Amino acid sequence: MAESTAFIEAAESALGSAGILTGEDVRARKASWLKDDPCQALAILRPASTEEVAEAVRLCASHGRSLIPVGGNTGLVEGTLAGPDDVLLSLERMNRVESIDEAGGTITVQSGVPLQRVQEMAIEAGLAFPLDLGARGSATVGGTISTNAGGNAVIRYGMMREQVLGLEAVMADGTVVSSMNRMLKNNAGYDLKQLFIGTEGTLGIVTRAVLRLRADMPSRNTALLAVDDYATIPKLLRELDAGLGGTLTAFEVLWQDFYDTVVTNTERHSPPLPDGHPFYVLVEARGSDQQADASRFEELLGRCLESALIVDAAIAQGSPQRDALWAIRDDIDNLVDDLSPAMAFDVSLPIADADRYTRRVHERLTEKFGEDYRGTTFGHLGDSNIHFMLTIGTTEHDRQADAMRVVYEELEPYGGSISAEHGIGIEKRAFLGVSRSEAEVALMHRLKAALDPDGLLNPGKVI
Amino acid sequence: MAESTAFIEAAESALGSAGILTGEDVRARKASWLKDDPCQALAILRPASTEEVAEAVRLCASHGRSLIPVGGNTGLVEGTLAGPDDVLLSLERMNRVESIDEAGGTITVQSGVPLQRVQEMAIEAGLAFPLDLGARGSATVGGTISTNAGGNAVIRYGMMREQVLGLEAVMADGTVVSSMNRMLKNNAGYDLKQLFIGTEGTLGIVTRAVLRLRADMPSRNTALLAVDDYATIPKLLRELDAGLGGTLTAFEVLWQDFYDTVVTNTERHSPPLPDGHPFYVLVEARGSDQQADASRFEELLGRCLESALIVDAAIAQGSPQRDALWAIRDDIDNLVDDLSPAMAFDVSLPIADADRYTRRVHERLTEKFGEDYRGTTFGHLGDSNIHFMLTIGTTEHDRQADAMRVVYEELEPYGGSISAEHGIGIEKRAFLGVSRSEAEVALMHRLKAALDPDGLLNPGKVI
Repeated sequence: MAESTAFIEAAESALGSAGILTGEDVRARKASWLKDDPCQALAILRPASTEEVAEAVRLCASHGRSLIPVGGNTGLVEGTLAGPDDVLLSLERMNRVESIDEAGGTITVQSGVPLQRVQEMAIEAGLAFPLDLGARGSATVGGTISTNAGGNAVIRYGMMREQVLGLEAVMADGTVVSSMNRMLKNNAGYDLKQLFIGTEGTLGIVTRAVLRLRADMPSRNTALLAVDDYATIPKLLRELDAGLGGTLTAFEVLWQDFYDTVVTNTERHSPPLPDGHPFYVLVEARGSDQQADASRFEELLGRCLESALIVDAAIAQGSPQRDALWAIRDDIDNLVDDLSPAMAFDVSLPIADADRYTRRVHERLTEKFGEDYRGTTFGHLGDSNIHFMLTIGTTEHDRQADAMRVVYEELEPYGGSISAEHGIGIEKRAFLGVSRSEAEVALMHRLKAALDPDGLLNPGKVI
Repeated sequence: MAESTAFIEAAESALGSAGILTGEDVRARKASWLKDDPCQALAILRPASTEEVAEAVRLCASHGRSLIPVGGNTGLVEGTLAGPDDVLLSLERMNRVESIDEAGGTITVQSGVPLQRVQEMAIEAGLAFPLDLGARGSATVGGTISTNAGGNAVIRYGMMREQVLGLEAVMADGTVVSSMNRMLKNNAGYDLKQLFIGTEGTLGIVTRAVLRLRADMPSRNTALLAVDDYATIPKLLRELDAGLGGTLTAFEVLWQDFYDTVVTNTERHSPPLPDGHPFYVLVEARGSDQQADASRFEELLGRCLESALIVDAAIAQGSPQRDALWAIRDDIDNLVDDLSPAMAFDVSLPIADADRYTRRVHERLTEKFGEDYRGTTFGHLGDSNIHFMLTIGTTEHDRQADAMRVVYEELEPYGGSISAEHGIGIEKRAFLGVSRSEAEVALMHRLKAALDPDGLLNPGKVI
């Protein structure tokens, strides 16, 4: 306890009183997005500059304390969960947009800036930041980099990794590595930023970043399509991707169980298409010429109907209809209530295998949990990502672990991934071996040992 | 000498007689693309499988011999140059396309497959592999991954890094790390493939890869535009990128000195536009509907003329005219002859600064070398990449080093890169400090020490 007090005093003296929260101020925060329990951490450090982050890291090192970098705290894999001896490091005071280069199409920000602010600043500058996800208001640039966030537009624009041109990070020994590259092309030696993207704060703390902005694509054409045979879905994806000239931005598949749960069995949405189809596909194209793009979109969907790639289509006429289609896909909060106590999954596998895999998971969970099991399937299938939202009627740890085992084990024959876009954190660590070989995990440990030999940064997460 | 003989015997016994070249067979190959001298290596190992690559690496390790992985030998930075004690490792016998997944849009290949074969196989499958560069016939998948190759379509599709979904590599201790991911989204732990992309064979030898294929974009609209004021070039790029709905694929800028040297002062090309403009911009959009895309392209260029973003335009009518425009941009072999003895450069910096930088380099080289200096400037400016082709009238080492110093030093104020897309190799190693801080270089050494502690793989390259 005396050691804790000494640490807190030293941190206060290094970072000032605004630079550290303890006691009730910590307890007032949630432990994680998934848990309503209060945060347990000993302290939350709130450095105001890269130099203060480095100082906080050196302070923790000298006190033999590990630390957990935290962003918007809306991650889904307990990647920032803290125990009572843990120290959290939040970059919430480092929330400055430093500059926008309109000519070069870049924005330079501190890590604590929320994603939505980047999007808004980009639009103000006549450009766009295309990475988007539900937690846009809370998720920070640092968090989305550390977890290599995905979302709805990955099929066209890639993950967060592809949006990061440069970054600055503080390493476990307090060294600041600044790689604030602003160019699309830079092959001057190893691309060091990759070490800090998607490594969940275990190899360094991202303090600043240069992000790539894109041309704004104001025209949007959106439709919900009905498909009766899964085998046509990959063909439909190829047909739309080719026929829309590269403007296909979203390709979301809703299995019938999802459509029934969210649309047919509730009054929440006016059904855009009849129920009873095995698959519904939400597609969106974004371009620059609403009228011309709409004709092309409608003609192409017409051809897809003729060639029986799809059996029905509801094309959004105007933005209220478009918003209504997206509201079905995004009705996750209600879905969580419908399937309480709910379990959420985020996996990926080659698109051709996704339905076979899904059926097998459904069969095995039904065998194991009987009527306690109810599941829904949906996801960004265009980029191979499936989400399950399901219930087995209990929150009991062992039963939930059994369900997880089914979902993850069945990925193995397809070379699938236990984490498409949410990361590993604590939650999936035990299953890492499903998607990664021993040699891969050994190499991860080797990297960790090389960059953080004392295990100071986010210990126990990922590996 | 006895040790060399023992090594060669051991290699023959491990890899078979087809698995090793020595003596005249080695000398029959060029030392590098830039040098007509014969290859000096002690031996060229030619393993036929990943297991044989691992065996070759272990063999070299046990004999205390370093090795240099080599692809198509068309790199431009002496990244695979070998001395008389060096052992080259070529994957030329590992040239099998293993599979194409049309539904998932992936191709799985061994590293020795040439880039052009990947492009051709993709087209046969109704898809496309968008990364393209002049050396497509010789450059291999392994080489383009190891150097993170770029080319003409990076503005839309990214570098080779963005095309690689998964890979397999042999590490310095002979371990095979297989990360043959086939999904667009996979956040299951550290993204290990990044260690082997763009690290020029210094951290591992890439043996196989899964590459992302895209929808084919058969419609092509191409134009050469004249611009009188550099300040409008970044605006033109933004205007075209936005106005073409995301189909802008190439944005190549030719400075007047390039246009004069290649077009005006020769009979090689029929001039598509009058001479005398300070800048010529070659733009190409690729989509799926030739007729609709052409109207949009022409209308947009008409608006650019009206708003004075451009002062003249030659729009290619049909593919012979398109090829003629590209032939100007690609007339590099003749340019090398015109500027003999030529020096080639590959740098990047923020687009807004590119002309100021170029003028300064031109001034300083003129001051230093007087009339012996003649230079041309061109490049994939849409992705911030400038190439210089110049002569200072001599191949004398110290004079050339002086010229290099000017070109690279002047990048510093802009945070530019001494290598946009060709890598560092031996040629640029002395200048790495221009583009990378001490902390960055130290981190590169730390990675190298962690993954290849004995310096077995491509020693002396990059860092």
